[in-house]
Amino acid sequence: MSTLPERIILGIDPGTNIMGYGLIRIQGSTMTVVTLGVLHLQKLDGHALKLKRIFEKTLALIDEYHPDDLAIEAPFFGKNVQSMLKLGRAQGVAMAAGLYRTIPIFEYSPKKIKQSITGNGNASKEQVSAMVQTLLNFKEAPEYLDATDALAAAICHYFQNRKETGKGPSHTGWKSFLASNPDRIV
Amino acid sequence: MSTLPERIILGIDPGTNIMGYGLIRIQGSTMTVVTLGVLHLQKLDGHALKLKRIFEKTLALIDEYHPDDLAIEAPFFGKNVQSMLKLGRAQGVAMAAGLYRTIPIFEYSPKKIKQSITGNGNASKEQVSAMVQTLLNFKEAPEYLDATDALAAAICHYFQNRKETGKGPSHTGWKSFLASNPDRIV
Repeated sequence: MSTLPERIILGIDPGTNIMGYGLIRIQGSTMTVVTLGVLHLQKLDGHALKLKRIFEKTLALIDEYHPDDLAIEAPFFGKNVQSMLKLGRAQGVAMAAGLYRTIPIFEYSPKKIKQSITGNGNASKEQVSAMVQTLLNFKEAPEYLDATDALAAAICHYFQNRKETGKGPSHTGWKSFLASNPDRIV
Repeated sequence: MSTLPERIILGIDPGTNIMGYGLIRIQGSTMTVVTLGVLHLQKLDGHALKLKRIFEKTLALIDEYHPDDLAIEAPFFGKNVQSMLKLGRAQGVAMAAGLYRTIPIFEYSPKKIKQSITGNGNASKEQVSAMVQTLLNFKEAPEYLDATDALAAAICHYFQNRKETGKGPSHTGWKSFLASNPDRIV
C-alpha cells in the first residue's frame, strides 16, 4: 500500500478593497479545492485596518491549513504610483504572514496566471473562473471572481512547479487541455 | 512621590536597500535615545528575503523594547510605479509587524517630518540629522542617515501627539489622510 504525497497550495489575490483566497490540495495528479473565499475590506475605515485584516486572514489560513507554498497574484503595473503603493502594502502584509511562518512565497503576474490556466494571457476573469471550476471540478460560481483568481494563482504555481521538476504531463492551457480532455468539451 | 509616565516610540524608515530604525523614550518632557541602527539589505539576494529581514527586524525591535507606538516615514510618491510597489511592500511588512503585535501605526511624509523637526519641509538629511542629535542630546554621527531619519519619524510623532490631542491618530483613513495631506498627492 502506498500513499501519494500531498501538497497544499494557498493562493492569494491581495487588494485593498477585496482579497481573494483559495486553497488547493494536490495528491498525485489530482487537484481538489480545500476552501475559497473573499475578504471584504471596502467597509473598513482606515488603510491600516484593511492591512491588519489581510495579515490576520492570511495568517489564520496558514495556521488552519498548513500550506506548503504561498502563491500570490502580483501585478507589476498600475494606473498610478498612489495605487501601486497601496497594492504593494496589501501584498506586503500578505507576504509577511507567509514569511513569518516560513512558507515559501511565489509571485505570478495576472498575465502569467491567465496564460497558465487558459492558454491566453489576455483571457477575461470569467474565462479564468470557468477554467478553474473545470480543472478543480466544482460547480457553484463563487460570489466574487477574486476567489477564483486566487485559486488560479495556486493552480498556476502547481503547473509551473510540475513543469520544472518534470513530474507529470505538462499542461499548457486550453488547447492542450481540450486535446487531452475531449470529454469535457460541452 | 510620583512617577512620570513613560512612552516609547519606534521610528522606522523602510526601504528596499536600507531600513533605518530608532527608538526614543519620553519621560515627562525629556526625550532620550534607546537605540538606533540600520539594516543593510543591498546584499540580500531576492526581494522576498529583503522583506523577510524587514519584518523580522521590526518584530524583534517590538519584542525587545515594547514600544507604545510605531511611526513610519512613508513617502507617497516616487519616480515610477515599479519603485512604489517595492516601497509599498517594504512598508507593508514593517507595518505587519506592528499590526501583529497590535502596536498603533502612524505614518508621516518625509516633508512633514522635516517640517516638524527643523521647521523647514525642504531641509536636507544632514540638517535633520543635526537637529535630531541636538534634540536627543547625543553626539556620535550615525554611519547612515537612515537611522536618524527613523529617529526623526519617532520625534515627529511625539511632537504631533503632544500638539494635537495627546492621543490617537491624526488621520482616520485614506481619504481623510489625503485630504489633510494634499502635498502627498501626485
